[in-house]
Amino acid sequence: MSDTMKQIVLASRPDGAPSADNFRLEEAAVPTPGDGEVLVRVHYMSLDPYMRGRMDDAKSYAAPVPIDGKMEGAAVGEIIESKADGFEVGEFVMGGFGWATHAVAPTAGLAKVDPDTAPITYSLGVLGMPGFTGWFGLTEYGRPKEGETLVVAAATGPVGSMVGQVAKSLGLRVVGIAGGPEKCKLAVDHFGFDACLDHHAYDDAGSLRKALKEECPKGIDIYFENVGGKVLEAVLPMMNQHGRIPICGMIAWYNEGGLGANAAEQTLTGPKLWRTILVNFLSVNGFIISNHWNRIGEFHKAIAPKIADGSIAVQEDITEGLENAPEAFIKLLTGGNTGKAIVKLI
Amino acid sequence: MSDTMKQIVLASRPDGAPSADNFRLEEAAVPTPGDGEVLVRVHYMSLDPYMRGRMDDAKSYAAPVPIDGKMEGAAVGEIIESKADGFEVGEFVMGGFGWATHAVAPTAGLAKVDPDTAPITYSLGVLGMPGFTGWFGLTEYGRPKEGETLVVAAATGPVGSMVGQVAKSLGLRVVGIAGGPEKCKLAVDHFGFDACLDHHAYDDAGSLRKALKEECPKGIDIYFENVGGKVLEAVLPMMNQHGRIPICGMIAWYNEGGLGANAAEQTLTGPKLWRTILVNFLSVNGFIISNHWNRIGEFHKAIAPKIADGSIAVQEDITEGLENAPEAFIKLLTGGNTGKAIVKLI
Repeated sequence: MSDTMKQIVLASRPDGAPSADNFRLEEAAVPTPGDGEVLVRVHYMSLDPYMRGRMDDAKSYAAPVPIDGKMEGAAVGEIIESKADGFEVGEFVMGGFGWATHAVAPTAGLAKVDPDTAPITYSLGVLGMPGFTGWFGLTEYGRPKEGETLVVAAATGPVGSMVGQVAKSLGLRVVGIAGGPEKCKLAVDHFGFDACLDHHAYDDAGSLRKALKEECPKGIDIYFENVGGKVLEAVLPMMNQHGRIPICGMIAWYNEGGLGANAAEQTLTGPKLWRTILVNFLSVNGFIISNHWNRIGEFHKAIAPKIADGSIAVQEDITEGLENAPEAFIKLLTGGNTGKAIVKLI
Repeated sequence: MSDTMKQIVLASRPDGAPSADNFRLEEAAVPTPGDGEVLVRVHYMSLDPYMRGRMDDAKSYAAPVPIDGKMEGAAVGEIIESKADGFEVGEFVMGGFGWATHAVAPTAGLAKVDPDTAPITYSLGVLGMPGFTGWFGLTEYGRPKEGETLVVAAATGPVGSMVGQVAKSLGLRVVGIAGGPEKCKLAVDHFGFDACLDHHAYDDAGSLRKALKEECPKGIDIYFENVGGKVLEAVLPMMNQHGRIPICGMIAWYNEGGLGANAAEQTLTGPKLWRTILVNFLSVNGFIISNHWNRIGEFHKAIAPKIADGSIAVQEDITEGLENAPEAFIKLLTGGNTGKAIVKLI
């Protein structure tokens, strides 16, 4: 076993969109597990939009990554040394190992992953945090009803594709929004959406709304919010009375930190947004899935069989090599990925 | 019985704040009830902020009042002629009689009012739509828990005072906001709020927030939204995680119609508001009480005994004479009333 490992740390905080020099690849000594801990050799790590928030020194869900600190995130790997009962060398586990080839972790935060029931990468996507986010937000806050219309952006991403597929299985009309004709085709052909609009094809919220009206003739009952920006502006006036908006993210605004001046902000005023919530009796709920882990068993029970029988489709976008993680992450923030962004380390 | 009645109609739509010339006092023939209808001599009519919305020709909960149409609203009066089974001359009923001395109405929308159990004006305030709005919004969407902190504006109004008193009875810390030292004293001494801040004493959201922080050392768990504007801006950054915001109104913005440029709008951007909902996992629900009339029995059962035993206090602001209704309504929109605004017609 090599005595050194590699990791990527936060070299500096981005001003707007992150660039390669905000990250630094480092070598470090492989740590030794203490009692109750395991050493994991990471096979795959996850890239997720929320990581952009961790790079800022601003109030958000969680503490920021410190400068020179290891970038955080979920990953899945093999136990190569164990000082914990019930966790054996050779077993696969998913946990918050960060952007690194190796990690020591207490077993409390680990989930065992069985490579024989599904590819281990699924624990980072469709069966992991993003898939759970989509399923939970939709069922808990979206309260979907047969015959209603749902809109979700980032339709081919791991959250949006779960939302769309679950809603479709419940008898809703499902309209996706995605970046580019290939992704739109994927949303319809692979994920079974009723329609998908390419947001690149619309200059502003008004023209996007016009196209949405064609695809949503009965208005929108559920807008699953994961992007903000132009899509939110297009959707808002189309919300039906008693509509629901679960909010799990707003990637369009992540690079704005303090949410400074941009086109969307100039037009979307707080009073207008507030008034829409009032006069349409909307139910708007922000959530983070980590507050709801107690429901993950229910999620797996509902969704794992559908993945096994192919009725829920999967799409992954795998980048090879830890050193390429920053570039893949930067691409993710501008929609350069297609499907769940994962980095393969081994 | 006189053959003529008086009513107030909408003479023109206001541009911003309404003025006296938007209204016109008219004489009309007293209508005759048809089968299943009653003729009511109105004793008291209600003035409520939502009526401002009805004066605009904009999408809102309900259709606007047409030009030259009678101003709408709830009122309570005595049946003076009946062609409906079960409704006798001399009985009191509450219904949507509008701004008028007499009205004919089908009995379907009427609620009988017993003058021996409570003053009949209570059917317009503490036991009527505003009180029900406060109770329902708080219990249904506010989900109050002992030890939490609640903030409500228009604290001495019929909605705010109900919200504050019910929350107080459930063991919350209750901080009101009201216009002027007299109202603040009333909120504390009469309605039992823990504290009340005079929003006139603070030039902007920042200084109001500073004062709120003194009174809400553990942050804010429930903001019952009935005003918008400066108060919303002050409160938003103080919301605790998992906070709840029921929205029943936003009177500060009612005179803006299209919500055009004003100081509040310049600073409260949509993205900032949206981000706060997300990162603090807020639950925001717009509602109108007329969608929830099926719960009114539950409300009366919970609240009527507390009014009877004095544990819920009442404050009314009664103007004499139909002809003075426009002036009283204009005052209401700028907080010139103290307590439930009512016009006495007889």
